[in-house]
Amino acid sequence: MAATDLEQIVSLCKRRGFVYQSAEIYGGFRSTYDYGPLGSLLLRNVKEAWIRSMVQQRDDVVLIDAAILSPPQVWQASGHLANFSDPLVDCTNCKNRFRLDKLDDPDTCPSCGEKNSFTEAREFNLMFKTQAGPVEGTGADAYLRPETAQGMFTNFAQVLQTSRKKPPFGIAQVGKSFRNEITPQNWIFRTREFEQMEMEFFVPPEDSDKWYEYWCNERLNWYIEHGIPAEMVMLRPHDDDELSHYSTGTSDVEFEFPWGFDELEGIAKRTDFDLKAHAAVSGERLDYFDPQTNERYVPYVIEPAAGATRTMAAFLLAAYDEDEINGETRTVLRLHPRLSPYKVAVLPLSKKDTLTPLAHEVRKLLADRYMVDYDETQNIGKRYRRQDEIGTPLAVTVDFDSLDDNAVTIRDRDTTEQVRVPIDELLTTVSERLGF
Amino acid sequence: MAATDLEQIVSLCKRRGFVYQSAEIYGGFRSTYDYGPLGSLLLRNVKEAWIRSMVQQRDDVVLIDAAILSPPQVWQASGHLANFSDPLVDCTNCKNRFRLDKLDDPDTCPSCGEKNSFTEAREFNLMFKTQAGPVEGTGADAYLRPETAQGMFTNFAQVLQTSRKKPPFGIAQVGKSFRNEITPQNWIFRTREFEQMEMEFFVPPEDSDKWYEYWCNERLNWYIEHGIPAEMVMLRPHDDDELSHYSTGTSDVEFEFPWGFDELEGIAKRTDFDLKAHAAVSGERLDYFDPQTNERYVPYVIEPAAGATRTMAAFLLAAYDEDEINGETRTVLRLHPRLSPYKVAVLPLSKKDTLTPLAHEVRKLLADRYMVDYDETQNIGKRYRRQDEIGTPLAVTVDFDSLDDNAVTIRDRDTTEQVRVPIDELLTTVSERLGF
Repeated sequence: MAATDLEQIVSLCKRRGFVYQSAEIYGGFRSTYDYGPLGSLLLRNVKEAWIRSMVQQRDDVVLIDAAILSPPQVWQASGHLANFSDPLVDCTNCKNRFRLDKLDDPDTCPSCGEKNSFTEAREFNLMFKTQAGPVEGTGADAYLRPETAQGMFTNFAQVLQTSRKKPPFGIAQVGKSFRNEITPQNWIFRTREFEQMEMEFFVPPEDSDKWYEYWCNERLNWYIEHGIPAEMVMLRPHDDDELSHYSTGTSDVEFEFPWGFDELEGIAKRTDFDLKAHAAVSGERLDYFDPQTNERYVPYVIEPAAGATRTMAAFLLAAYDEDEINGETRTVLRLHPRLSPYKVAVLPLSKKDTLTPLAHEVRKLLADRYMVDYDETQNIGKRYRRQDEIGTPLAVTVDFDSLDDNAVTIRDRDTTEQVRVPIDELLTTVSERLGF
Repeated sequence: MAATDLEQIVSLCKRRGFVYQSAEIYGGFRSTYDYGPLGSLLLRNVKEAWIRSMVQQRDDVVLIDAAILSPPQVWQASGHLANFSDPLVDCTNCKNRFRLDKLDDPDTCPSCGEKNSFTEAREFNLMFKTQAGPVEGTGADAYLRPETAQGMFTNFAQVLQTSRKKPPFGIAQVGKSFRNEITPQNWIFRTREFEQMEMEFFVPPEDSDKWYEYWCNERLNWYIEHGIPAEMVMLRPHDDDELSHYSTGTSDVEFEFPWGFDELEGIAKRTDFDLKAHAAVSGERLDYFDPQTNERYVPYVIEPAAGATRTMAAFLLAAYDEDEINGETRTVLRLHPRLSPYKVAVLPLSKKDTLTPLAHEVRKLLADRYMVDYDETQNIGKRYRRQDEIGTPLAVTVDFDSLDDNAVTIRDRDTTEQVRVPIDELLTTVSERLGF
């Protein structure tokens, strides 16, 4: 099973330190979240798993890490200054502001009920603007990037030259982006500050459709391989009127959230839109010379672009389970071991000095390679439940016999089965069970 | 030896794809940098090495990941709105603007030479400001954080409660911060957008001096353990007039940059300044109740705060070496294996189809665990030099004998020694040589 109600996960995440409202002591800063001890580890593992699949295990994709602050020319060329906006209207009666395209009835204010009370719609750009340098005025304007993608396009020529890759090849990036959303909603699903995992895959134009199919399937499978049940994710091709200004075809990977199927990731055919636009505005040559055919061409781009924080939410929702152990209900997060915040918990049966030195030795042995929790408070049953609830795949118990037999008990989160393992085989056994 | 000239590293980094000027196709955006395929991996490894030492291998420090956008109350309480500024003067003759405290002669303009031409100094706040939400005006002001530290203070009570840690314990964070520096300089050393690795360690007030000593030594040793020669780093206690508004004592870890010893990290005694300030402004209780003594107290804080990008620059400078191999000068980056962008390079002796399938098998085997480069262009000597220059510790050569003996040659970056290893022992051998 999975969580059926968002509140199950929101509440667990608050209680156990996954996600906090940002600046909560000041009443919270709307639509920004802070990731606590467990959430920061989980989010980091989501991003690491993506980099491992998209960069490390391939020989045709490289990683970059571009700046968040960027000058207006980038967003002029990309079309974001002109097109990246929502239409807003104000109610002249109650003074509230709304997104015109989200109103059920564009003639009646949903807040005060007044009819025909709206001002003309005006376009509200979603980019955050600031000023850089000691001088004020428009000459110093800078924007917080609304997507990481443009960093791959503006650096295309330099990456091509320094990495000696050639199409088909990709440039990937993981990092923060910012959109001044009018209606942030659904917890960490849609927030003004969020994290993206994007890759621009540059291909010969004639191979664009083939690679689009390839990446749609690859990306759908990535979620399933990392623990989301196949029936909870699907590919949904966009209708023509949904397409972004740069796209000739997009499919979303959608996950079955408690409010219905919704987007985790978009795989878009961006064609040569961006490289051509940047070439035109900058005057630089952004193309590829193929030494085999002696021809120059502007590559087409297939872009799988995922949201890291909403992906984290999906993994949590899908992993949530309740079952019965010895007649008691337990909550368990059945997270993929690569995603679990902690891989192992070390639990001395007693917190007496007799056991804790050996328990800390075991902790150090495991912590050299894995993120490990250490817990010596309350009875062992409660401690197992706590680890189950945060998704720790393995718990290692150090008991009084350990002092004699130099062995410990490993307990499995999913089956609750326990096996005795000599300490000098512990690292190997843990590695085999986790699969890494 | 190490690099004696910053230009040696800047040039290598540009040529090989470590660091690019941001938005270079538009003439560059001053003081922001993009990290290319190799630089993004190196920077990531620097951050990972810090998290491994500061969080993973300890049982008294947890990680968080707080938002960059934050409301004015946070910076009012922290003192940044009032104190985080530089004094600026304008020359009334040539209209240039300067930082008063950086002028050699505060009466003479260094640009046009005019005497007594400066305006009165005015304080210029270094925080980047933007507006969040659909409504404009001061009610929507938000700031890009100038340090990650405040996220640890505003979340103190929630982390204390959800992680069940008690003093002495730490909250760590790695992430971007932004300062509108008037005089960004020295490449990635001082930039407007940068990355921090900070930890707030909360202790009983009477133990503050003891922990301050402890963290000064721990942090100095961290750089040495990761490959910086001991004679290139030192601890320098701040003079009283250098101290930040929140500190009663600070020591910098300084590295011998080409322009002299300069700061990598500050270890500061922040006392109870921040927790008390946030408690006063928010009205929340930010303290600790000790169940053993039945007493409540506000912990003191020791803060080791390092710059990730300048630390990366230091590792590059210290690792740079030139030696002679077979009568030819080679450039080699003697990076610690944990920091090297790639851990292993896989090099088929020929790019013919006879060898490449086996070479790709070897690559896949290694890429399951490590970041691996694959290079089949040009002669093997040139390929070794390329890997030396980017700091890859091990190169694995697949040759025609490999097809018969199912073995490959491992070459060591530092000694250039080569040994033959059966492919089915390769992963173990590589792991032993790297040490992880």
